[in-house]
Amino acid sequence: MADPCLPSETIRIEAFSDGVFAIAMTLLVIEIKVPGHDLVAKIGLARCLISLWPSYLAFLTSFATILVIWVHHHWIFALIERNDQSFLYWNGLLLFLVTFVPFPTALLSEYLLHREAKIAANLYTGTILAISLAFDALWRHASLRLLSATATSAKQKEARQITKRYRFGPPLYLGAFGVSFLSEAWSVGLCLVLALFFAIRGWPGRGVTDPETA
Amino acid sequence: MADPCLPSETIRIEAFSDGVFAIAMTLLVIEIKVPGHDLVAKIGLARCLISLWPSYLAFLTSFATILVIWVHHHWIFALIERNDQSFLYWNGLLLFLVTFVPFPTALLSEYLLHREAKIAANLYTGTILAISLAFDALWRHASLRLLSATATSAKQKEARQITKRYRFGPPLYLGAFGVSFLSEAWSVGLCLVLALFFAIRGWPGRGVTDPETA
Amino acid sequence: MADPCLPSETIRIEAFSDGVFAIAMTLLVIEIKVPGHDLVAKIGLARCLISLWPSYLAFLTSFATILVIWVHHHWIFALIERNDQSFLYWNGLLLFLVTFVPFPTALLSEYLLHREAKIAANLYTGTILAISLAFDALWRHASLRLLSATATSAKQKEARQITKRYRFGPPLYLGAFGVSFLSEAWSVGLCLVLALFFAIRGWPGRGVTDPETA
Amino acid sequence: MADPCLPSETIRIEAFSDGVFAIAMTLLVIEIKVPGHDLVAKIGLARCLISLWPSYLAFLTSFATILVIWVHHHWIFALIERNDQSFLYWNGLLLFLVTFVPFPTALLSEYLLHREAKIAANLYTGTILAISLAFDALWRHASLRLLSATATSAKQKEARQITKRYRFGPPLYLGAFGVSFLSEAWSVGLCLVLALFFAIRGWPGRGVTDPETA
Repeated sequence: MADPCLPSETIRIEAFSDGVFAIAMTLLVIEIKVPGHDLVAKIGLARCLISLWPSYLAFLTSFATILVIWVHHHWIFALIERNDQSFLYWNGLLLFLVTFVPFPTALLSEYLLHREAKIAANLYTGTILAISLAFDALWRHASLRLLSATATSAKQKEARQITKRYRFGPPLYLGAFGVSFLSEAWSVGLCLVLALFFAIRGWPGRGVTDPETA
Repeated sequence: MADPCLPSETIRIEAFSDGVFAIAMTLLVIEIKVPGHDLVAKIGLARCLISLWPSYLAFLTSFATILVIWVHHHWIFALIERNDQSFLYWNGLLLFLVTFVPFPTALLSEYLLHREAKIAANLYTGTILAISLAFDALWRHASLRLLSATATSAKQKEARQITKRYRFGPPLYLGAFGVSFLSEAWSVGLCLVLALFFAIRGWPGRGVTDPETA
Repeated sequence: MADPCLPSETIRIEAFSDGVFAIAMTLLVIEIKVPGHDLVAKIGLARCLISLWPSYLAFLTSFATILVIWVHHHWIFALIERNDQSFLYWNGLLLFLVTFVPFPTALLSEYLLHREAKIAANLYTGTILAISLAFDALWRHASLRLLSATATSAKQKEARQITKRYRFGPPLYLGAFGVSFLSEAWSVGLCLVLALFFAIRGWPGRGVTDPETA
Repeated sequence: MADPCLPSETIRIEAFSDGVFAIAMTLLVIEIKVPGHDLVAKIGLARCLISLWPSYLAFLTSFATILVIWVHHHWIFALIERNDQSFLYWNGLLLFLVTFVPFPTALLSEYLLHREAKIAANLYTGTILAISLAFDALWRHASLRLLSATATSAKQKEARQITKRYRFGPPLYLGAFGVSFLSEAWSVGLCLVLALFFAIRGWPGRGVTDPETA
C-alpha cells in the first residue's frame, strides 16, 4: 500500500461495496427455477433442464458482468487517495443499479423464448448500459477530483490511460442495447462477450499483482 | 485514524452492521416479482412492467433509506471512541428494524394500488419512523456516554452539531407517517425525498473526506 | 488488541462467521410472507397482518437468538489466542446450525396456529437447543485447548467465570424444548426471553468496552 | 503473517471470496421448502418433515462441501505471496461454480425420490466435480506461478506436499460422478463423506494453528 494510513473511510466503502457485489452475484442463482413436476412428467427432466438455457445464459452473463465491475471498482479504489461526498453517492448509484440486476436477469430468464422477448432484452441490456454509465461517471469524478493534488505523476499517467480505455465501455454497451432491438439472445451474448473482453484486457501496462505496491 | 489502535471490538461491530445493511439492501430486489404469463398474455409485457411501478418506488425508497442510514451509521462510528453493552443493543435494535424493511417494502409493492393501500403505507412509513427513532437513540447514547471523557473539544463540538442536525429526523419521518393516512404514494415519495435530503446534506461543516484524519 | 499480530487466520474465521451470522439473520425476513389477495379480500389487510403474529414472533426470536450467539461468539474470539483444526470444525458445526435456523423459523410461522403446531415447536426449540450445545462445545474446546499455555492468569480467571456462566445455557434451552411439548407459543416465548436474558447479562465482571484492551 | 505488508489486493480478493462462500452456504437453506397445508392434512406434519430427507441430505452435503472448499481456499491464500490476472479469473471461475451450487441442490431436493433422479444426481455430482477441477486449476496456477521466485524453501516444500495431496481430489469426485449413474442417494452420500474426509485430513504436517506464523 502506497500509504500505510489509507483513510479507513475508503476501506469501509470498499468493503461495503464488495459486500453488495458479492450478495448480488450470489442471489442471481435463486432466479433459476427448479422445473415443476407437471412439465417434467410431460417432457422429462433432461429436456426441462435444457430448456432452462435462457436462465443459464442470463445467470452467467450477469455474474460475469458484476464480477468484472467488481474487479475494475477495486482498481479504482487502489488509485484514489481520498473520497468526498459526491463520490459516495456516485458509488451509491452504481450499487443501486448492481442490486437491481437480479430483476432484469429473472425477467430475461422467463421471457427470452417468449414472443415479447424484446422488451425483456431491452431492459436487461439497458440496465447493463446504465451500470457502465454509472461506472464511467464514478471514474470521471474520481480521476478529476480525487487524484489531482497529491497523486504522483505515475498515478496520473495511469489515470489518463484508464480514462482512454474506459471511453469504449459505454458506446459498446450502447451497441448491445441497440442489438437487443434486433436479436434478444445475441444482445445478451454480446454483453457476455464484453464482460469477458473487459476481464481479459485488464489494467493498462501491467498485471494485477501490484496496483498499490508498484 | 485518530487512534491507530481503534479497539477491534468497534471495528467488528461496524463490519457486522455493514454486512446486515448490505444484505438488507440487496435482498429488496427479490421482492420485485417477475410478471406471470397469464397477465402478460392479457395486457402485454410492457404494460405489466409499467404496472410494477409501486415495486420500483418501494425498492428505490428502501434502498436509499438504508444507504443513508449506513452512511450516517458510519459517521457515528468514526466519532465514538469506545462502546458499551447498551450501545451494542441499541445497534442491535437498529439492525433488527433494518432487516425487517424488506417485508413492509414487499407489502407496499403488492398493495399500493389496492383499496387497502393505507394500511401498507402506514406500516411502511411507520417502520422507517421506527428506524429514525432507533438511530436517534443510538446517537444520543453514543454522544452522551461514549464521547464524554476522552474526546477532544473538536469532536465534542462536532457531536453537538450533529445532535442539532439529527433532531429534525424523527419529526420529519413522523410527518411522513402522518401523510400516509392521507395519500399512500405521497407518503412513500416523501420518504424518498427525505432520504435524498439527508444524503445531500451530509455532515456538519465538511465533506466526507476526512472524518477521521481531520 | 493485546497482541498486535493476532494471527490473521483467526481474524478470517471470525469475519467469515460474522458473514454467515449476518446473512442468516437477514434472510429470516423473507419467510414473512405477504398475505395473498384472496385472504385480504375476505378479512381485510389489517386482520391479515395481525394474523401473521406467529411470523413476527418467530422472526424476532430467531433474530435475537442469532444476535446473542454472535455477541458471545465474538467474546470467545477475543479471548482465544490461537486456533486448531477441531476448533475450525466445531465452529463449522455452529455455523451449520445457525444457517439452518430460517427453516424451522418458516415452519413455525406457517404451523404455529395449526393443530400440529407441536411438531413445529419441537423442531424450532430443538434447533436452538442444538445451537446452545454446539456453542458450549466450541467454548469448552476453546477454553481447554486454546488458552492453556500462554494465557495470562487474568484471562484464565475470566475463562473460568465464563465456563461457570455458560453452564446454564444448555439446561435452560432443554427446558424450552421440554415446554414445546406443553405449549408451542410459550416455548418460543421462552426462547425469546432467554435471548434477552443472555443479552442483558453480558460478560463476567465488566462491560463490552474492552475485552481486548483491558 | 510472514509478511506484515501482505498486498491489500490479495486480502480484498480473499474477503470478497469469503463473502461469496458465506452467502452461497447460507442461501442453501431457502431451498428447503416448508411443506404445504394440503400434504400436511393428508399425511401429517411429522411424516412430511421426514419425507424432506433429500433436502436435508442435499443441504448438509452442499454446506460441508462449500465449507471445506472455503477452508482449503483459505490455506492457499496463506501460502501465495502475490497474485496475477489469471489467478483472479481462476478464482472467479471457482466462485461462479460455488454460487451455482444452490440450483443443483434444490433440483436434487425436489427430484431425488423421483424416477428421473439420475439426471438430478448427475448434475449435482457433476457440479461438485467441476468445483474440484476449478480448485485444482487455481492451486496449480498459484503453486507454479505465484510462489516460485520469493518463497522460502519451507513454503515450497509445503506447496509440493499439497500438490501431492490434492491430486486425489478430482479423481475421487469423478468417482462420485460415476456412482451417480448407479445410485443417486449413494453418490450424494459419497460427496458428503469426501467433504468430511478432506475436512479431517487437513493440511500436510501440521494443524491449522499457524499456516502463517510457522
